[in-house]
Amino acid sequence: MTKRCIAVIGSGEATEEESRNALEVGREIARRGAVLVCGGLTGVMEAAAKGAKEMGGLTLGIIPGEDPSSANPYIDIVIPSGLGIARNVLVVSSGQAVIAVGGKVGTLSEIAIAFVIKRPVIGLGTWQIEKARAGGNEIIFARDAKEAVKKALELSRG
Amino acid sequence: MTKRCIAVIGSGEATEEESRNALEVGREIARRGAVLVCGGLTGVMEAAAKGAKEMGGLTLGIIPGEDPSSANPYIDIVIPSGLGIARNVLVVSSGQAVIAVGGKVGTLSEIAIAFVIKRPVIGLGTWQIEKARAGGNEIIFARDAKEAVKKALELSRG
Amino acid sequence: MTKRCIAVIGSGEATEEESRNALEVGREIARRGAVLVCGGLTGVMEAAAKGAKEMGGLTLGIIPGEDPSSANPYIDIVIPSGLGIARNVLVVSSGQAVIAVGGKVGTLSEIAIAFVIKRPVIGLGTWQIEKARAGGNEIIFARDAKEAVKKALELSRG
Amino acid sequence: MTKRCIAVIGSGEATEEESRNALEVGREIARRGAVLVCGGLTGVMEAAAKGAKEMGGLTLGIIPGEDPSSANPYIDIVIPSGLGIARNVLVVSSGQAVIAVGGKVGTLSEIAIAFVIKRPVIGLGTWQIEKARAGGNEIIFARDAKEAVKKALELSRG
Repeated sequence: MTKRCIAVIGSGEATEEESRNALEVGREIARRGAVLVCGGLTGVMEAAAKGAKEMGGLTLGIIPGEDPSSANPYIDIVIPSGLGIARNVLVVSSGQAVIAVGGKVGTLSEIAIAFVIKRPVIGLGTWQIEKARAGGNEIIFARDAKEAVKKALELSRG
Repeated sequence: MTKRCIAVIGSGEATEEESRNALEVGREIARRGAVLVCGGLTGVMEAAAKGAKEMGGLTLGIIPGEDPSSANPYIDIVIPSGLGIARNVLVVSSGQAVIAVGGKVGTLSEIAIAFVIKRPVIGLGTWQIEKARAGGNEIIFARDAKEAVKKALELSRG
Repeated sequence: MTKRCIAVIGSGEATEEESRNALEVGREIARRGAVLVCGGLTGVMEAAAKGAKEMGGLTLGIIPGEDPSSANPYIDIVIPSGLGIARNVLVVSSGQAVIAVGGKVGTLSEIAIAFVIKRPVIGLGTWQIEKARAGGNEIIFARDAKEAVKKALELSRG
Repeated sequence: MTKRCIAVIGSGEATEEESRNALEVGREIARRGAVLVCGGLTGVMEAAAKGAKEMGGLTLGIIPGEDPSSANPYIDIVIPSGLGIARNVLVVSSGQAVIAVGGKVGTLSEIAIAFVIKRPVIGLGTWQIEKARAGGNEIIFARDAKEAVKKALELSRG
């Protein structure tokens, strides 16, 4: 039986608020028994993984480089992809839903990829996507980490 | 000596205006002696490649699937990547500059990837990117195909 | 703390002996507390994952396609890579050591990739690699599943 | 109309004989009007591209890194893939046939990938592949560069 996996995306250089949100998202994913998938590096990725580990959860980090030791210390399973930015596709595809916490242009690429490959995207203080071009795709905004994870789990059931 | 390569991105289902723009962009790229790179399929990709071939240019198509025959008939060199949507990274990285003609969520992913890997993006009726999050990256808008290619070539000199 | 991960590679159409070996390799990986990584499909991949689940282990399957439901039923975490055969790189890079059980040309590609990216390869009835060209790389042969896993764990310590 | 593309694979550190063979293979590919595809770096890749350029041919180099300037000086069109060793898949898939000149473990991975994705492989002093496991796949050996290219072109017609 496949485990529920939720991808958390966001910048490698997080603001304090983004770090707090990511930490809480990670905790809540673990509390709810899902696996946290992320890009395995710093910032939002590290805060989310730290939160998941605090609650005894399982974390998967898909990093762009080939050196497993460049993953943050809260990653249980490292995929040292060596694929550079193309690893963003894997982070998104490995989640049944995606939670975007803040984020810059790398996160924007992941949101767009999620739309293309039909993963629901839940947003916490992240990008606004121009509606007219998005073809019915949209970010589902959440007020806080708890709500974000709740929505992610609901949407990944389908 | 490496040839100048310009990537043209846009939807596989183009409007009439987008097709006209893409065709003219392709022609102008070929007139200026550059290689046209695209995703090799239909819509904007096909119109741009058609334009380039009309002017005797060279076209490279990096397709998501494994079957070379799924490329449009105006592609000289097909890369049947088999990488799915991860091929978007290659389309963008193969251009010294990128011209976005219209476009939907796939194009948005390519614009964002271009920002991450530092390729200038020229836009013809394409996405509006939220400034506050883009960290200094922006689409350079052009009024028409000629101006788009002119800017792409200027910006790919650096 | 990163978990120990062992990749098991082999054909999607296994002989009875290969299936028995893969099952026992999977069991032993789980008994020793390591994570089983594989290509997520049938044959050797399925037998190894089945063995790991029998012993309560954790399994990661990196599949070539985009549809998670094409993974075998013993995979806990599916990475629906969409990368086609390029996913072979990820299967190998995700293991700290690789165990090859039988195998055809796909397995040969994975053994060669393992040599390039410096993963030790333990073999159970698998390819003979021409020594003169392998530049010091070689498959370490094991007599049975238990020995294969023992060697894989020893070699992944370094 | 798609151009005929022949992939040339081999080590980044070529012997003198391999360099001579690769140079002559490159020349012959260009003489016959086909495009030379290679990994874009040194050794066999550079010698083959140099040969093709001597005869006025067209060369495509798919490099593992992100920096186009790491391609050898005989590459017309650089694809700075950023995919690491996964770019081997693209080198092979971009040729309608593959010529292996010498080669080490990287080349072995490319030969195996060629077998998986059904590209004919012509060999010039390269690996011996164990027949029993190769499932009907085999390297077609050539006596010299001219014969190698002749066979590659014949086999890529089908």
